[in-house]
Amino acid sequence: MDSIKTRRTIRKYKQTAVDDVLLNQLLELSARTQTMGNLQLYSVVITRDEEQKRRLSPAHFGQPMVTSAPVVLTICADFNRTSEWCRQRKAAPGYDNFLSFINAASDALLFTQTFSCLAEEAGLGVCYLGTTVYQPQQIIEVLGLPRLVMPIATLTVGWPDEEPALSDRLPLASFVHEETYRDYSPADIDKYYSPKECLPENQHFVEINHKETLAQVFAEIRYTKKDNEALSQLFLDTLRKQGFLSSL
Amino acid sequence: MDSIKTRRTIRKYKQTAVDDVLLNQLLELSARTQTMGNLQLYSVVITRDEEQKRRLSPAHFGQPMVTSAPVVLTICADFNRTSEWCRQRKAAPGYDNFLSFINAASDALLFTQTFSCLAEEAGLGVCYLGTTVYQPQQIIEVLGLPRLVMPIATLTVGWPDEEPALSDRLPLASFVHEETYRDYSPADIDKYYSPKECLPENQHFVEINHKETLAQVFAEIRYTKKDNEALSQLFLDTLRKQGFLSSL
Repeated sequence: MDSIKTRRTIRKYKQTAVDDVLLNQLLELSARTQTMGNLQLYSVVITRDEEQKRRLSPAHFGQPMVTSAPVVLTICADFNRTSEWCRQRKAAPGYDNFLSFINAASDALLFTQTFSCLAEEAGLGVCYLGTTVYQPQQIIEVLGLPRLVMPIATLTVGWPDEEPALSDRLPLASFVHEETYRDYSPADIDKYYSPKECLPENQHFVEINHKETLAQVFAEIRYTKKDNEALSQLFLDTLRKQGFLSSL
Repeated sequence: MDSIKTRRTIRKYKQTAVDDVLLNQLLELSARTQTMGNLQLYSVVITRDEEQKRRLSPAHFGQPMVTSAPVVLTICADFNRTSEWCRQRKAAPGYDNFLSFINAASDALLFTQTFSCLAEEAGLGVCYLGTTVYQPQQIIEVLGLPRLVMPIATLTVGWPDEEPALSDRLPLASFVHEETYRDYSPADIDKYYSPKECLPENQHFVEINHKETLAQVFAEIRYTKKDNEALSQLFLDTLRKQGFLSSL
């Protein structure tokens, strides 16, 4: 799996189609991923239709990959299929609750990442859209997701038409803890974050945003408390509408 | 990444140690995984110490892998480090909310699955412990996890000392939808679930549990409504204690 060493998010794709046989092979292999009780608590909705991509686009804030990628995959936490199986088999399903959402979302995300790794190993380029959890209600409407199905990840997939620079990462010591969690001192923060802060692209990023520090760009512009709180409420409302908070 | 084709969960490990250099290499490569705003919203606590394994064991219902595996990894959704970075850089972090938990948990789970794939490709055996989200409070105490850190996945890791049969999977058509979600008819459920229900091991499973159907074993014994509701409440209480529901 050498592709992991040089992986980068790909946002520009060639016009070449992604072959159905290849896509299905990758999806089928991804399903080898471990899953709760071997129940496979996920579904994947494949979008190739131009009109559907156009309808999905606003939920992802119009990011151009949604309409320009040959394939968009929306991966969902799905307890609908398993619940339907129960009902057809004289069993009363009890999965309209928060823990079941966490279980299904975990299954869906593990599946998503195996797919990413396999697709990149096959030479495809992938972009993970974190926006999926921002306005899930819009995605639910466009894809017609029923109760107990919640979109949790989106991947745009295609043949790469760019080769961006590798992005930086924090050093291993910054996120690995031996035996117990060792909290971060100001000196730790300096040591772990200074290399990132010194990168010319990040210094430029701070400058064009008229901020003093890179952290301010994140906390005050990109991911603000106000937005996070509003989106938290939206997400919980949608989770309730999809039936995952019935017992609360 | 051929290892995915024959992957199986490994619960029995050789006494051979897992080399530190290899483990660190795998963890470092896993960090190439895409992450929200390149913030790497996760931490990994490595447990090798026998006493610590013994203390973690009850949170995982005493499953023997926790004490018998040479290495236990607890992967956490972590907004503590990023928030500390903000505070050290004159920025006010706004990540004590539900959306931020979802973002960090997603980062943590994607990281976890890249690690699984890489470890299996290196010949290691891995078991994913879904129990992590059942009694997170116990894990938090044993590992000393601070506010805005929540355990989300556990992997036991070691050199395989068994080769269990490959487990079955649902057919591709059962979890893939073209353009919109097509809900399941009774005939669909029969078609997709019959092969699983006909497996001798599953028929045996139904028999020893004195049930009529396999779905009943799941809904009435393994993952019951009552347990799910109690654990949902526990999980939300813990999420609140860890500071991820401050705005609600």
